Amino acid sequence: MIEGSKMTKATDRLHYGMIGGGPGAFIGDVHRTAIRIDDKATLVSGVFSRDQKVSVSFGTSLGIEKDRLYGSFEEMAQRESERPDGIDFVVIVTPNASHHAAAKVFLSHGIHVVCDKPLTLEYHEAKELAELTERKRLLFGVTYTYTGYPAVKQIAHLIASGEIGHIRFINAEYAQEWLATRSEKENRQASWRTDPAFSGKSNCVGDIGSHVENMVATMTGLRISSLSARLDKFVEGRQLDDNASIMVEYEGGAKGLYWTSQVAIGYDNGLRVRIFGSKGTIEWFQERPDHFTVMKLGEPARTWSRGRDAFSDEAQRFSRLPSGHPEGVFEAFANIYRSYIETLLALRSGKKVDMGKLGFPTVQEGAEGVRFINACVESSENSGAWVSL
Amino acid sequence: MIEGSKMTKATDRLHYGMIGGGPGAFIGDVHRTAIRIDDKATLVSGVFSRDQKVSVSFGTSLGIEKDRLYGSFEEMAQRESERPDGIDFVVIVTPNASHHAAAKVFLSHGIHVVCDKPLTLEYHEAKELAELTERKRLLFGVTYTYTGYPAVKQIAHLIASGEIGHIRFINAEYAQEWLATRSEKENRQASWRTDPAFSGKSNCVGDIGSHVENMVATMTGLRISSLSARLDKFVEGRQLDDNASIMVEYEGGAKGLYWTSQVAIGYDNGLRVRIFGSKGTIEWFQERPDHFTVMKLGEPARTWSRGRDAFSDEAQRFSRLPSGHPEGVFEAFANIYRSYIETLLALRSGKKVDMGKLGFPTVQEGAEGVRFINACVESSENSGAWVSL
Amino acid sequence: MIEGSKMTKATDRLHYGMIGGGPGAFIGDVHRTAIRIDDKATLVSGVFSRDQKVSVSFGTSLGIEKDRLYGSFEEMAQRESERPDGIDFVVIVTPNASHHAAAKVFLSHGIHVVCDKPLTLEYHEAKELAELTERKRLLFGVTYTYTGYPAVKQIAHLIASGEIGHIRFINAEYAQEWLATRSEKENRQASWRTDPAFSGKSNCVGDIGSHVENMVATMTGLRISSLSARLDKFVEGRQLDDNASIMVEYEGGAKGLYWTSQVAIGYDNGLRVRIFGSKGTIEWFQERPDHFTVMKLGEPARTWSRGRDAFSDEAQRFSRLPSGHPEGVFEAFANIYRSYIETLLALRSGKKVDMGKLGFPTVQEGAEGVRFINACVESSENSGAWVSL
Amino acid sequence: MIEGSKMTKATDRLHYGMIGGGPGAFIGDVHRTAIRIDDKATLVSGVFSRDQKVSVSFGTSLGIEKDRLYGSFEEMAQRESERPDGIDFVVIVTPNASHHAAAKVFLSHGIHVVCDKPLTLEYHEAKELAELTERKRLLFGVTYTYTGYPAVKQIAHLIASGEIGHIRFINAEYAQEWLATRSEKENRQASWRTDPAFSGKSNCVGDIGSHVENMVATMTGLRISSLSARLDKFVEGRQLDDNASIMVEYEGGAKGLYWTSQVAIGYDNGLRVRIFGSKGTIEWFQERPDHFTVMKLGEPARTWSRGRDAFSDEAQRFSRLPSGHPEGVFEAFANIYRSYIETLLALRSGKKVDMGKLGFPTVQEGAEGVRFINACVESSENSGAWVSL
Repeated sequence: MIEGSKMTKATDRLHYGMIGGGPGAFIGDVHRTAIRIDDKATLVSGVFSRDQKVSVSFGTSLGIEKDRLYGSFEEMAQRESERPDGIDFVVIVTPNASHHAAAKVFLSHGIHVVCDKPLTLEYHEAKELAELTERKRLLFGVTYTYTGYPAVKQIAHLIASGEIGHIRFINAEYAQEWLATRSEKENRQASWRTDPAFSGKSNCVGDIGSHVENMVATMTGLRISSLSARLDKFVEGRQLDDNASIMVEYEGGAKGLYWTSQVAIGYDNGLRVRIFGSKGTIEWFQERPDHFTVMKLGEPARTWSRGRDAFSDEAQRFSRLPSGHPEGVFEAFANIYRSYIETLLALRSGKKVDMGKLGFPTVQEGAEGVRFINACVESSENSGAWVSL
Repeated sequence: MIEGSKMTKATDRLHYGMIGGGPGAFIGDVHRTAIRIDDKATLVSGVFSRDQKVSVSFGTSLGIEKDRLYGSFEEMAQRESERPDGIDFVVIVTPNASHHAAAKVFLSHGIHVVCDKPLTLEYHEAKELAELTERKRLLFGVTYTYTGYPAVKQIAHLIASGEIGHIRFINAEYAQEWLATRSEKENRQASWRTDPAFSGKSNCVGDIGSHVENMVATMTGLRISSLSARLDKFVEGRQLDDNASIMVEYEGGAKGLYWTSQVAIGYDNGLRVRIFGSKGTIEWFQERPDHFTVMKLGEPARTWSRGRDAFSDEAQRFSRLPSGHPEGVFEAFANIYRSYIETLLALRSGKKVDMGKLGFPTVQEGAEGVRFINACVESSENSGAWVSL
Repeated sequence: MIEGSKMTKATDRLHYGMIGGGPGAFIGDVHRTAIRIDDKATLVSGVFSRDQKVSVSFGTSLGIEKDRLYGSFEEMAQRESERPDGIDFVVIVTPNASHHAAAKVFLSHGIHVVCDKPLTLEYHEAKELAELTERKRLLFGVTYTYTGYPAVKQIAHLIASGEIGHIRFINAEYAQEWLATRSEKENRQASWRTDPAFSGKSNCVGDIGSHVENMVATMTGLRISSLSARLDKFVEGRQLDDNASIMVEYEGGAKGLYWTSQVAIGYDNGLRVRIFGSKGTIEWFQERPDHFTVMKLGEPARTWSRGRDAFSDEAQRFSRLPSGHPEGVFEAFANIYRSYIETLLALRSGKKVDMGKLGFPTVQEGAEGVRFINACVESSENSGAWVSL
Repeated sequence: MIEGSKMTKATDRLHYGMIGGGPGAFIGDVHRTAIRIDDKATLVSGVFSRDQKVSVSFGTSLGIEKDRLYGSFEEMAQRESERPDGIDFVVIVTPNASHHAAAKVFLSHGIHVVCDKPLTLEYHEAKELAELTERKRLLFGVTYTYTGYPAVKQIAHLIASGEIGHIRFINAEYAQEWLATRSEKENRQASWRTDPAFSGKSNCVGDIGSHVENMVATMTGLRISSLSARLDKFVEGRQLDDNASIMVEYEGGAKGLYWTSQVAIGYDNGLRVRIFGSKGTIEWFQERPDHFTVMKLGEPARTWSRGRDAFSDEAQRFSRLPSGHPEGVFEAFANIYRSYIETLLALRSGKKVDMGKLGFPTVQEGAEGVRFINACVESSENSGAWVSL
């Protein structure tokens, strides 16, 4: 049971704080904008940079009062938890290596958390966060962005309804080009992503492989039982992987093949999932998120369009515009925040919430992601030996 | 010269009001959300419904003070213009038939205006608004949504740069399915769109044909000199057109062919523009707004991707996410408002603004749209006789 | 009733001759190859060039006996009709201007004819050929190539079965780039196509517009009742049209819009037909001939694949390879010849043939094409005045 | 040096025989049709079925003299090699298990061979054929059909020219749906394909995986040094694999990932190859064979079209129709036979032939394919252990 009652405000708005996401940190702005789309929470506090001067100047420009711009996340957690009007939740958008410490301190002070993926560097850290979340009765969201698309929810609905029979095989990939050259020197993003001190043991699997793992789990409910992975470094001098091939086995006998790459020239952000069942196939591509295709034996391939073709109530609830009016990443992000905030508001008002159907990725899923990443690294270091999860 | 100086606030935020867009009026919510994305203006006043009770209840739910929720747009224009903290601009999102009266009264009271398209029912009304805007030195934006896409700006840039030589022919279409059956009875949108009392003399050309006309003008700068049109009513009992074929001639000798339809089953929101020049072709499709294709003689077709391929500074300024992270209609809308608000802010702070490059559609373009619609109706009523514009 | 009995050979092979199609004449070779695919007819006679030396040398290289390589088509018709083993049919693949004279002389000598499109320059010539064919009880095929695709036959079947309800509107186009520059000087094809002496009054409508007209008729059975056309010459110095826009009305109230262009840079051979009915839409694109899409209200779009999805018996009969094994233009051509030759063989063996379902375009359809072309020219010369057919 | 001199005919035509390909054997007819397209060889002999009566009846229907329709391939090899007008080459299109014996006996009698893939069941058998071919100075073609497409030749040319830099990674797949259910009972093709007695140790890798291996080799010239494979049987009761995932390493350091499936519902014949280099990417899909895409860093993706964009002389030589006129599998097959027959004719006339650039797959490539298949089986039987080739 989650302690929504800890939140003291009476209105239907929440207040939140942010760790990271300062000047030049592209993703922080995306989170803030996404929250603004549904306009159910206000940013009132933050630590936007390790450099307090930068943080205060940036926070002030966002309209935050100076006395809620802190020197460290520890201070912020302490002080906000003491205020009667303290933040309802915190959003953590720092590089991976700080996720665990930051999340832990906010949870410890009884503050709900939203954290970017991958959740932590080590699986035991993620487990610790999951246990702390449970013990403190808090709500922990992990921003696997692309699961916010209405089409993803509809695909999960169709698969759960048996539309394609039992799943046999999954072919999923996430290909990008942005690390095809040694851009570590010029590009700040590239710099920390490929640096073990910030990213942990994996760059490519850690960053985008974890999206593949989570998206497949979200769509199908399948859990990986074992895997064999090969992580590659194609760009000379790079410290971490920039490409990976992964064979997986799921509980129950289905099998899968994942490929992730950041050296796939011409690929922008190509997360693609193809799920093959005994009665049919479902395919979805992140770059055309409003559509997906269902193929069944002996029938022409059907391409669904969000807003046009009858989605389930749960999926339709996240469709904002009529068909043919593209929705994108901001809206997918907003959908995750909408689910998270609606859940918090429901809990606060004492409503019953089905914790198995939260509509956003949780700390458990974040922990699964870390386990997946680390198993891939372990397998690859052992010439592709199969690793059980 | 525009009177930015009339705006009295010192901060970098603006205040706006809204006419229309009450409960169930889908498009009003889209406008408000789009403005929130860049968070440079706050909604502080409005008339959201002809029924004042509904309007007040709805406005209150949006956080607006009761004393700024008025009984009529006339009252609102009067009262807001008298307040020292009155609105900087008003957004008009009522059915077409009220645009002229509402816009006129706000302009008359010296308040900047953003209005949905088509601007007015009659061309002389639109001209009147244009003249009033000019005389009052105000800024008037018309929300031809799709012109807000970065790719549209890049296409305009490429064409102006001579990338495809001189333009010979344009084939543009806008196909939808939503009026393929007689949905006037059940569907509120369908009801007013097909009712001359609210839509004027044309439904299909008025609603989506005007987007075609404006998009082609935005991309190419070409002005239509004459046209021959055939407006069809395919659904029995319908009062206004639901399909149209239009041959056009542009000043300078280029020619074009437009098709708009609301009975094209399977089509969601298919605005497609193909521009054929002496050296190459450019194609863009609204449902895949981040991409466009350039084809040149003797070279493979090139598909551009927003965020990946080098856009001009002006186009890139409106790209918010890295390549492969889809942006959609909310962002296109936001881009129009960003341009409009940035212009107002620049004027207020006394900066020089190039009125020929405003980055959003103006009242002149709105007037061109009305002229186009009316010429189509006139031609069709005369068996397709060529009408000069 | 057709006089199959005139053919005297006992085997299940036919013998044919060819007019035109000599060295460098690309299309002649395509016809011969297409006939070879099903291997039911042997080339035994011909006039391959106006220059008899060239003709004989070329014919000999094809393995034809010298005494069946004639100096003129008149001589050939005469002599072959006198031989006991004379040709069963003749294939005419000369430039348009000679079609009428050549076809007439073979028909007059009782020889069956296959002729390229457009059938003739003048409608009265085409009518004359149709009447002669009827009077002489002969079989006359016109090679509207693209109607040979199995998908086209399946589309016709679906429409006839009421799959998309009654037809409201048709949008069809045929865009190419090959005449985007003034290539008349270097390119032999371009030279005769744009020369009125060989092509008649129209180049673009005559060549590819006639394919549009026939394809729509083949798929839908609709007959054009009137049209308004604008023919353009975009390349300076060109004698005939290289682009055209055509509004049409069909008997029964449906309407259509055709566009044909040879200056559409980036377009290879883009014949595309979109048919909008009261219950659904069907779309087909010649460059992806094995597939087509059916869209119905409230259902996801369905993409059919030849060989995979259940075609009617008549359409399936022309599918040669399993699904996903592309068939192309050679096979489409071969299908037309297969239908033509099978019909001749059936007639020869005294079988009953349903003359309304021949599976290949006939002289009547060829005549319709000429009427269409000439109406387009007439309308365009009169500023787009509507012309009844 | 190959013994073209053994062929005694003076004309520019060849004579060939066929083993297999009798009634109902779809692929035999495809081979015969493909040869007929270029019309450079005549079928004069054969063993079309194990049942001599069937074979003779079928062969006669093809116009073959009765005395050249033999009771066994051994008899045929013997007798044809003794005739002064004996066949120039034999085409072997039986199920896999008979390839080795049939090919061996024809080679032994000095007759050139074309054989379907996979070449043999065992690698030592394939090596034996390669050695015999070498020793007897004969020409041995293996019909990896899809390598016959002009686009494939152009891709090989671009890669060899350094267009995409050095190759880093290859992702190739071949997905079909035709064995998604237990169709072994009803479907003759399915029956022998999934029966070890006819197919050997692998069905899916053997049939379509070998196409992947050969296509990648054809395009890139890369040789696999080791691989790790997992072969799956998803349909209950099936004896052989119907899906496979394969990680490969190439000599020189590039890596690859292959996936083949016959249970991928909705997939017709989806051979797709994506090649990622240090400077760019090339992608090709068999179901759209006339096109391919080249993507380079910082440049829009370029889609090439056969016939439109400048192919190398060698690739263009196999392009038969103008751009936008689809060519398909028959033409790809014909291209392989054209290369094979042209080579034989050149050798017969004493011309010098560059044996490294034959334009068709040879016995060496066939042997590589068998080695690949067997390595996949071996790895899979050992839990994916890496197997060196």
